[in-house]
Amino acid sequence: MREVAVIGTGMTKWGELWDKSFRTIFVETALLALKDAGVGKIDSMYVGSMSSGLFVGQEHIASLLADYLGQTPVPSTRVESACASGGLAFKLGFMEVASGMSDVVLVSGIEKMTDVNGYEATYALGTAADQEYEGYHGITFPGLYALMAMAHMEKYGTTREQLAMVAVKNHRNGAKNPLAQFPFEITVDAVLNSVMVADPLRILDCSPITDGAAVVILCPVEMAREMGKPVVKVTGTGHATDTIALSSRKDITWLEATYQAGKKAYDMAGKKPEDIDVLEVHDCFTIAEICVMEALGIVEKGQAGKAVEEGLTALEGKIPINTSGGLKSKGHPVGATGVAQIIEITKQLSGESGERQVENAKVGMTQNMGGSGGSSVVHIFEKE
Amino acid sequence: MREVAVIGTGMTKWGELWDKSFRTIFVETALLALKDAGVGKIDSMYVGSMSSGLFVGQEHIASLLADYLGQTPVPSTRVESACASGGLAFKLGFMEVASGMSDVVLVSGIEKMTDVNGYEATYALGTAADQEYEGYHGITFPGLYALMAMAHMEKYGTTREQLAMVAVKNHRNGAKNPLAQFPFEITVDAVLNSVMVADPLRILDCSPITDGAAVVILCPVEMAREMGKPVVKVTGTGHATDTIALSSRKDITWLEATYQAGKKAYDMAGKKPEDIDVLEVHDCFTIAEICVMEALGIVEKGQAGKAVEEGLTALEGKIPINTSGGLKSKGHPVGATGVAQIIEITKQLSGESGERQVENAKVGMTQNMGGSGGSSVVHIFEKE
Repeated sequence: MREVAVIGTGMTKWGELWDKSFRTIFVETALLALKDAGVGKIDSMYVGSMSSGLFVGQEHIASLLADYLGQTPVPSTRVESACASGGLAFKLGFMEVASGMSDVVLVSGIEKMTDVNGYEATYALGTAADQEYEGYHGITFPGLYALMAMAHMEKYGTTREQLAMVAVKNHRNGAKNPLAQFPFEITVDAVLNSVMVADPLRILDCSPITDGAAVVILCPVEMAREMGKPVVKVTGTGHATDTIALSSRKDITWLEATYQAGKKAYDMAGKKPEDIDVLEVHDCFTIAEICVMEALGIVEKGQAGKAVEEGLTALEGKIPINTSGGLKSKGHPVGATGVAQIIEITKQLSGESGERQVENAKVGMTQNMGGSGGSSVVHIFEKE
Repeated sequence: MREVAVIGTGMTKWGELWDKSFRTIFVETALLALKDAGVGKIDSMYVGSMSSGLFVGQEHIASLLADYLGQTPVPSTRVESACASGGLAFKLGFMEVASGMSDVVLVSGIEKMTDVNGYEATYALGTAADQEYEGYHGITFPGLYALMAMAHMEKYGTTREQLAMVAVKNHRNGAKNPLAQFPFEITVDAVLNSVMVADPLRILDCSPITDGAAVVILCPVEMAREMGKPVVKVTGTGHATDTIALSSRKDITWLEATYQAGKKAYDMAGKKPEDIDVLEVHDCFTIAEICVMEALGIVEKGQAGKAVEEGLTALEGKIPINTSGGLKSKGHPVGATGVAQIIEITKQLSGESGERQVENAKVGMTQNMGGSGGSSVVHIFEKE
């Protein structure tokens, strides 16, 4: 297996991109990544997208996007694992370079979510849950995370305010990210007084509906060195599944797939939670970040709410989490999120994060999650 | 890179499976493959499916199916490349075993197409084309292939009867396949007098709407030998893309992605077209089989119609094509087709094809295609 490096990244401003089409968003973003990497030709590409069929009425997007990027006949593969599609696309791109099958691989994530109305978007997002046993009986996606939040509050004494503090922290970081959809700060009071979505989750506990893409370019570490590029290596990768329905789990406050994926990535990289300097996690809802912190071993079970309150995960804290603003402030074009997390960590390790730079960041981690935790993909990165 | 073998296959009767759900069809089929391989535990799985979102309102199917097969927390990945989703899933499974990342990998394809009405199914299938430049202007999928047929007839003198003979041949083979959706023979007259779909293609030129799945188990050749299994090796793999819209191509009778994917697979296996003993190709419409034969170099450009008429590709011919009955007679649950092609070739090379066995078949090939040729995946298999 060869060592793999991230040698280029591309991302544009996320938001409600009414004046851009699915393919336009992709091509603009991919060109930025190719330019950043200093390459024009790729050997293969991957596209992570959750539901282009339901959001824009288009499947076969791997060929469509290879075509519009002027890269045919290169092999192009679309992968889907709900909101973990981007992270999963990265895993496959890593595998292709590490195995020696290809040298230069483009990995992308994209979702255009605002071409449909709110009802249709809610339906499309619900397809990440078990439709026959969950969605078709009336529960929406926020409803599933609301159950997890209620259980966490009941079992561990996590407070409503602590959940709000996750959103407040992420918006504080996102206010420093010019590409974020909502680059401004919010207060705990604002969260607690925002519209109720699914008790106890209010609108400011929820990540938004977003259009956007994120693209990275991978190649063997040796090639990156020859090109004179700063080397950010992929040193760990983990991917795991869990039951898709919450009702099948022993404990709905525990994210088993995230635990399993994290364990694999830690083992492969030879790292422990305390070695991680900066971390991007899947905060689709505030409770998700709480549960992920525990599953990744950043804190003990039940302790995440308290840790957030004490500032452990703030930009100035011991383990800054979601310095990009997270899904909450940066936005959550579902298929793109996993790749955008990797861009944030690559930039942090390269010292290119400006106002939100974590000092001396040498080891970074990303955690991307599908559905209510039915899939999870974790990666560890190190600066050479 | 390690050598990879197919050690188990599973397929059930295809058709309009009203009494079975998406997950039930998958689990039944996967259990057959695991039993055939003699393994209970897998390291990883892939699922090829074109549009579970539009056909059954469910995404995140890789986790759903891993869950219902009792295989969580194994990594499970869904891939999509329209009707080439199954072949592409196989390519990724091959890569995972060949690279040494996993030993036992389950590769599946599935589509449940009859839970929606005809209008909805036509819309879902149309998402394989360029919706903004083709579908939204009114053309359906059969319409695109009808344009290709018209151009081929005009350019090369291919006759309406020769197109019909593709369907007649495939139904003759399919009549010997108990798992086929339409296991009966048809005549040229029946094709020529069947209902017009898109001139010149009539209903008996078109593959049907089908529910079904197909599953294979892969492992390193060395492990297969240790298990005492007959060894069918994967010796070539090729995957390529082309423009998604027909209007962007120089010549709509030529399938460039199939040519490119074929070339890669031939080169990797060290084989030429004349070395292939048995071949499964993507006959979504009769004209598709004609164009694929030419792109794979089985015959010269423009000669495929004549070759079919002369019996080159019949069961008793020099290069039998679609001994399974092809998409036309066996059925075409779009995401499953690529994997089912591989099952047919595995069985042919193992001498287990009963009435439709090709004598002394030692080298087999599969060609799976997305959209109107925007993606293509080719594999070559050899009996040890």
